[in-house]
Amino acid sequence: MPLRLDSRQADFETAFTALLESKREASVEVGDVVAGIIADVRARGDEAVVELTNKFDKAGVTASSLAFSQDEIDAAAARVSPEVMAALETAHERIKAHHEKQKPVDHVYQDALGVTLGTRWTPIEAVGIYVPGGLASYPSSVLMNAVPAKVAGVERIAMAVPTPNGQYAAAILAAAKIAGVSEIYRIGGAQAVAALAYGTQTVAKVDKVVGPGNAYVAAAKRQVFGTVGIDMIAGPSEVLVIADGSANPAWVAADLIAQTEHGAGARAILVTTEKGLAEVVAAEVERQLALLPKQDLAREGWEEFSAIITVASLDEAVVLANHIASEHIELALDDPQQVLAMIRNAGAIFLGHHTPEAIGDYVGGSNHVLPTARSARFASGLGVLDFVKRTSILGCDPASLAALSQAAITLSEVEELDGHGRSISIRLNR
Amino acid sequence: MPLRLDSRQADFETAFTALLESKREASVEVGDVVAGIIADVRARGDEAVVELTNKFDKAGVTASSLAFSQDEIDAAAARVSPEVMAALETAHERIKAHHEKQKPVDHVYQDALGVTLGTRWTPIEAVGIYVPGGLASYPSSVLMNAVPAKVAGVERIAMAVPTPNGQYAAAILAAAKIAGVSEIYRIGGAQAVAALAYGTQTVAKVDKVVGPGNAYVAAAKRQVFGTVGIDMIAGPSEVLVIADGSANPAWVAADLIAQTEHGAGARAILVTTEKGLAEVVAAEVERQLALLPKQDLAREGWEEFSAIITVASLDEAVVLANHIASEHIELALDDPQQVLAMIRNAGAIFLGHHTPEAIGDYVGGSNHVLPTARSARFASGLGVLDFVKRTSILGCDPASLAALSQAAITLSEVEELDGHGRSISIRLNR
Repeated sequence: MPLRLDSRQADFETAFTALLESKREASVEVGDVVAGIIADVRARGDEAVVELTNKFDKAGVTASSLAFSQDEIDAAAARVSPEVMAALETAHERIKAHHEKQKPVDHVYQDALGVTLGTRWTPIEAVGIYVPGGLASYPSSVLMNAVPAKVAGVERIAMAVPTPNGQYAAAILAAAKIAGVSEIYRIGGAQAVAALAYGTQTVAKVDKVVGPGNAYVAAAKRQVFGTVGIDMIAGPSEVLVIADGSANPAWVAADLIAQTEHGAGARAILVTTEKGLAEVVAAEVERQLALLPKQDLAREGWEEFSAIITVASLDEAVVLANHIASEHIELALDDPQQVLAMIRNAGAIFLGHHTPEAIGDYVGGSNHVLPTARSARFASGLGVLDFVKRTSILGCDPASLAALSQAAITLSEVEELDGHGRSISIRLNR
Repeated sequence: MPLRLDSRQADFETAFTALLESKREASVEVGDVVAGIIADVRARGDEAVVELTNKFDKAGVTASSLAFSQDEIDAAAARVSPEVMAALETAHERIKAHHEKQKPVDHVYQDALGVTLGTRWTPIEAVGIYVPGGLASYPSSVLMNAVPAKVAGVERIAMAVPTPNGQYAAAILAAAKIAGVSEIYRIGGAQAVAALAYGTQTVAKVDKVVGPGNAYVAAAKRQVFGTVGIDMIAGPSEVLVIADGSANPAWVAADLIAQTEHGAGARAILVTTEKGLAEVVAAEVERQLALLPKQDLAREGWEEFSAIITVASLDEAVVLANHIASEHIELALDDPQQVLAMIRNAGAIFLGHHTPEAIGDYVGGSNHVLPTARSARFASGLGVLDFVKRTSILGCDPASLAALSQAAITLSEVEELDGHGRSISIRLNR
């Protein structure tokens, strides 16, 4: 059974805080191992990457087979069924269309003094995408990472995907081909992140590395941050469903299960104003879990990490939602707009009864790479802005420089930076 | 003498790469010490913060004097001269006006299928600003960090500034007061970052920590990343001046010195098409350095980390500039627009002969917190976007869900996530 809480119970604050702070991941201390791997790849390049790949993935690669050839990519795409290819194309088109609307616009203007001020956006030149291989192999994630980069105008997209025992999913390569990925490497783990960040003889270095991975990949991203850009460090997936009496309990139950089936600490929380709904949903989850072919992960996530919380009002639900700052929030309400307006911390919000979170995982068009573990308090989902950077532009003429010079020189004196002041005063004809 | 290179020399590529890769900071391995400090602050709160602050800063604080009182802040502001207050007010007004234009706009729309898609921006609730104390005490940096947060709508801005031997600069507190900082603490180093990220009895925790600091501060930010957001890890400051025959050598020399006087590995690079200008600028730097009251840092940065590069054309200069990806680029050209259009990697670009970089440090209006150490390849300067986050919004009705269901279910099958597919199929009345 998942945790059951009621906002009217005496120790609710304590129990709710404990839920928020409960650990859902084993913290593996791999920092030193990863530092060693990165140093090795920097020192020996391909040689180290090949050795590590054959050691950890039993992939049987050589330097010359680290990259998938175009023939291999085409052959993989040809092995994917027409139905799956069509679904990938649909997802690609919708994700692309939505992300096109995120492209930022340059803005340069002159202010009242005649100072030119502005902002110019340019794409990052080369980006590396890490894609987990093996069991949890998600072609949808390839699209979600590659499409915003492509829309941003990134010229070179290098993908790394481990091939344990030489195995890989054809759909991963097909998705990469559809998304316009430039290069695909059979490399995983910290060695993949190191190769992308520092480059080897075969893998040209990139400017930013994105994509989810295990503890080794996460630690490697943290360590190369600064040398290259990184995206967020992804934690276990999570959903918060806010439901009132209008919700269909079977649909809500299906959505909770869809979240916990990710395993690896995935969490589903139902917050509802209806005690009756809470009971029915709990029973529905049990019923539907029993029908699920692979129910172990989903059951474990439901029983160990999940919760049903009963509250007195939707206002209370919003307060909890803003504390939880969930990756996904579903509003299982007839009228979701009022609650939507009050939520400030969420990766993505799904409106009404007919928007299961899973539709956003695949074909809604919005990105499914979203902030987890309460990081929606300060972080955003992946998008075009993650693949561009802003240059600011400043221009003075003699008159505007003169107008601003006294304040600037005064501040340079306060900061004891005489050279700063002199670089201004030398330009003034006094 | 700084390094002298010519793009036409035989070993130019090698020498230029060596320049780019040369180390300008001692890498201090403080990760373990910082991890210990963070754990201590998490475990003992105020007690640890007070102990560490009195140990490292000899600040003589108690838990009840960790925060500056409003009286102390007002008294500090009253000690600042009217001229400096006026300069701070001018800077504040201009920074505020420019950053107001960076506020992102929500965008929600319906696509052809009737799917609601959108983006909503909300401010981060609480932000911590780290401000270095002691010698290098920069009120302008207080404004540059606090104003974008305030413009973004951040409700609570907590500032931490170390007070070595109990000393602090009145102008720092005055700038914080002008910018609307909510709370100011006498805490520095890793213990300040830990207190802001995890909270203590006195310091309520924040959602994001920004601001520059020493190796301990940088390591602490890296370690708390994920628990809170962080901004970039700042490296030594740097300028690249691109000059042609129209440049005034004395002005260029003054700008190079203004950069290297920051010390701590600061670098100035002049790239010019005019061999004659290179010679005159080199002589001018020597002449002006001799006139500078505190010339040691400026001379060290010029001689150890800086370079003058002669190139055959402005096109060549642009290629180098895009490799260098400098924090600041000055275009000391009569017509900067053509070169401007070709530069893609730069934190900020300063146009023409009358825009010394120092004007942007103080009162130009753009932000002076900019990506260093080649990170302009993937990162942007500080701005309003660093203090907001994006929530994506997705909404289907029965018809649009039905239209998208087949593709989504197909992809859920490929990914072996049956629960995902069922959360969609359960809603279809078939």
